[in-house]
Amino acid sequence: MKPENRKRPIVIETPDNGNLQLDPNGKLRHFLSINGLNRELLTEILDTAESFTGVSERTVKKVPLLRGKVITNLFFETSTRTRTTFELAAKRLSADVLSLNISASSTSKGESLLDTLRNLEAMHCDMFIVRHADSGAANFIATHAAPHISVINAGDGRHSHPTQAMLDMFTIRRHKQEFEGLKVAIVGDILHSRVARSQILALNTLGTEEVRVIAPKTLLPADADRLGVKVYHNLEQGISGVDVVIMLRLQRERMSGAMLPSEHEYFQLYGLTDERLEAAKPDAIVMHPGPINRGVEMATQVADGPRSVILQQVSFGIAVRMAVMSMAMGTMNPGASKK
Amino acid sequence: MKPENRKRPIVIETPDNGNLQLDPNGKLRHFLSINGLNRELLTEILDTAESFTGVSERTVKKVPLLRGKVITNLFFETSTRTRTTFELAAKRLSADVLSLNISASSTSKGESLLDTLRNLEAMHCDMFIVRHADSGAANFIATHAAPHISVINAGDGRHSHPTQAMLDMFTIRRHKQEFEGLKVAIVGDILHSRVARSQILALNTLGTEEVRVIAPKTLLPADADRLGVKVYHNLEQGISGVDVVIMLRLQRERMSGAMLPSEHEYFQLYGLTDERLEAAKPDAIVMHPGPINRGVEMATQVADGPRSVILQQVSFGIAVRMAVMSMAMGTMNPGASKK
Amino acid sequence: MKPENRKRPIVIETPDNGNLQLDPNGKLRHFLSINGLNRELLTEILDTAESFTGVSERTVKKVPLLRGKVITNLFFETSTRTRTTFELAAKRLSADVLSLNISASSTSKGESLLDTLRNLEAMHCDMFIVRHADSGAANFIATHAAPHISVINAGDGRHSHPTQAMLDMFTIRRHKQEFEGLKVAIVGDILHSRVARSQILALNTLGTEEVRVIAPKTLLPADADRLGVKVYHNLEQGISGVDVVIMLRLQRERMSGAMLPSEHEYFQLYGLTDERLEAAKPDAIVMHPGPINRGVEMATQVADGPRSVILQQVSFGIAVRMAVMSMAMGTMNPGASKK
Repeated sequence: MKPENRKRPIVIETPDNGNLQLDPNGKLRHFLSINGLNRELLTEILDTAESFTGVSERTVKKVPLLRGKVITNLFFETSTRTRTTFELAAKRLSADVLSLNISASSTSKGESLLDTLRNLEAMHCDMFIVRHADSGAANFIATHAAPHISVINAGDGRHSHPTQAMLDMFTIRRHKQEFEGLKVAIVGDILHSRVARSQILALNTLGTEEVRVIAPKTLLPADADRLGVKVYHNLEQGISGVDVVIMLRLQRERMSGAMLPSEHEYFQLYGLTDERLEAAKPDAIVMHPGPINRGVEMATQVADGPRSVILQQVSFGIAVRMAVMSMAMGTMNPGASKK
Repeated sequence: MKPENRKRPIVIETPDNGNLQLDPNGKLRHFLSINGLNRELLTEILDTAESFTGVSERTVKKVPLLRGKVITNLFFETSTRTRTTFELAAKRLSADVLSLNISASSTSKGESLLDTLRNLEAMHCDMFIVRHADSGAANFIATHAAPHISVINAGDGRHSHPTQAMLDMFTIRRHKQEFEGLKVAIVGDILHSRVARSQILALNTLGTEEVRVIAPKTLLPADADRLGVKVYHNLEQGISGVDVVIMLRLQRERMSGAMLPSEHEYFQLYGLTDERLEAAKPDAIVMHPGPINRGVEMATQVADGPRSVILQQVSFGIAVRMAVMSMAMGTMNPGASKK
Repeated sequence: MKPENRKRPIVIETPDNGNLQLDPNGKLRHFLSINGLNRELLTEILDTAESFTGVSERTVKKVPLLRGKVITNLFFETSTRTRTTFELAAKRLSADVLSLNISASSTSKGESLLDTLRNLEAMHCDMFIVRHADSGAANFIATHAAPHISVINAGDGRHSHPTQAMLDMFTIRRHKQEFEGLKVAIVGDILHSRVARSQILALNTLGTEEVRVIAPKTLLPADADRLGVKVYHNLEQGISGVDVVIMLRLQRERMSGAMLPSEHEYFQLYGLTDERLEAAKPDAIVMHPGPINRGVEMATQVADGPRSVILQQVSFGIAVRMAVMSMAMGTMNPGASKK
């Protein structure tokens, strides 16, 4: 890890991910979490994604890097949007895509999940894209996968959503060039957000000057001050002078949990409006992982306004996923071909 | 529009579709409705489809026209048959196909549908195939789509089903060579049928001598006499001397709506039998958009008989959809490549 | 049929499958059942599969044998695992795959199923992979399919599951080289198992010295002694001295049918353990069609032990399906190309 990160205690994620994610040469093997990846590797992901941004705009949106490989979507939790972006990324790399709908119930026993994995490996699948409601599921699968398999975490419980974090980093770098000197505010339900955890880690690893979180106390983790962030409870104060405002999606089921007032009241306190955005820097950008709850997390004028880069995040998401997939496949194949 | 059509008032569809469907050079950009397309353009679709009929019969059923393009099925209403023909047509053009099941409920708010569209555009999808229970849905999507997107209407409410109409025209032309001098009868639930509306428009635009509709009064629109058709309530009289008999599918849910007597009674009055077909010309062909309710719209002997061209309609449907898709993609790309 | 089989009465399957499955030159046209196929043809399937085993291990897991062909999965009964292996096999042959979910209810009338078939034929599909809860469904479809269509049985009722049987034969041949001199025991619910029926036929056709079935009386067919097998009710006695032990999957719904004691009691009587396996030959292999019920059909130590070849069965299943699909497509195309 780079010196600029050592000064901040990072305790969200388990410390042994690093070894699991990297091969003996320090190259990417699985992509499970930002934790344990250093600044060079995150930068390599961003640079590789940069080389793919042109592919989506070509007449023929294909590169043959993963031709004949079988990429398997193991989505234990439904997410059409995320599954679609991985599927498009895989197809642009010329891979074959196998999508399996696996209900959590049918694999509730660890042994049964392992048998499913063993069978997919025996069918010569090359990569598992894992989405699961339980924190640690992608790590579990990577720990037990055969040596020739790469695992990509597409969101696990409250733990991690590293490809989302990296497409956010890509979007920030496109607009702000470098992370040193940047002030970035993350607004909303930090407590339950795997996106926020991965974003904080990535921003700190990449050397961001200041990472702020803005949330009511009920939506902050107890150890928020140990995350390497500044904590704010007031939106105007929190976004004052920032370069980037990242709004989190509000899970509406939190509303009934007495953790939150009504949607209307939430918008009054934490909804982003053009007026409130005045407190940020004049060239501040506004981000959101989507899908937006308009009128809850932000006003429609902000979502569709000139500072919003929300749709660019979606576009860049495909290039970033192409980068991670091709790097993870290449890792195990330092030569020209991989068996 | 050609002179032979100007004499007939056509009021079924909104008059501004023409501009939306065509680019400034008069080339096809979206395919939403027969309305607003002139005889030359409909003939160009038929001629292009003709060039594709051989592809399905080759050893390798592929042409590389849309290689690397992403065709997205946006089916808000389930239709395995129509979705399958579009998927096969797209694959024969070497495109990648993305099929999204979008429940109408999750996109009941127009804003939310627009956000879905914006996201798919950001993922660099190239074409939306739209099926929706609401009339005008495909037009709405085309109106709001980004400039690089083509929209194909795969059936919207009671409004329009233009690819079905064009595959019917293709089938008629294959058997009868030209539309001048032809008498065509459409039998069944004209009132609720988007297929019938599109067929009537296409037949009139292509210069058919006489278009007849045959239905009980409860299944005819109030303005039937303004559609440019002759109205009959008696099947034998209506098909007397015609070259083409098009049977419509009877939606069984109409039965309970007091619009119709029982299926049995419907067949007694409007079901096509070999005996009744004697009234048509000796070389008359029988068509149906499928799936057939045997013993309701027609007897099995007619459906499987020598005059039935129903399965040819299915085959030609793939060539016609290949034609419309490749023309719409080429529209926005007058040069050799499109960004 | 070979002389060594003629001595055994085989009455499980209808005797006219042979003609239906073979073209006039004796080449494979459909693959519906082991019944009616002789030793030469089964050996040709195994030899062809052998040539494909390398494909799954290549960097680019593709051969262009079925490029542009449309392989249609007609699964009237859900089976993710079997559907997935056929889909992977088809993609490795470079075919396009169309997967249709057909509820049995929507096609409960034979006529309606035939209309579905006619439509898929009109769309120029080339092959139907059929899975159905009713015995004889694949034969019915093959009987009524157009001449250019091949039908592969992916499991029909209690009747037949011939690709599973052939991947089992492939696995046995890989480990034991030839079938003469082999003793093979099949353990479990013989009565309801289409897998067992196909295995017994294939083993006998290939000249296996002795085929044994081991089951409680309630799970044996009344005519078990006419199957060309030796019947045992005791596991230790049945596997004594065998070269191959094939465990069948226990359908848990049989438990409530008073056909079986509890799962625990079943395991006590018929569950395979390391201790019991001592009765077999020292180099005996253990097979299972998957998915395993661990602790019911066998102990985990056996399933994951050195004699288990269960995951090899899965891998070989793709090569065997590639072999059957390419042979059936080639049958109708004795020259270089097929219309």
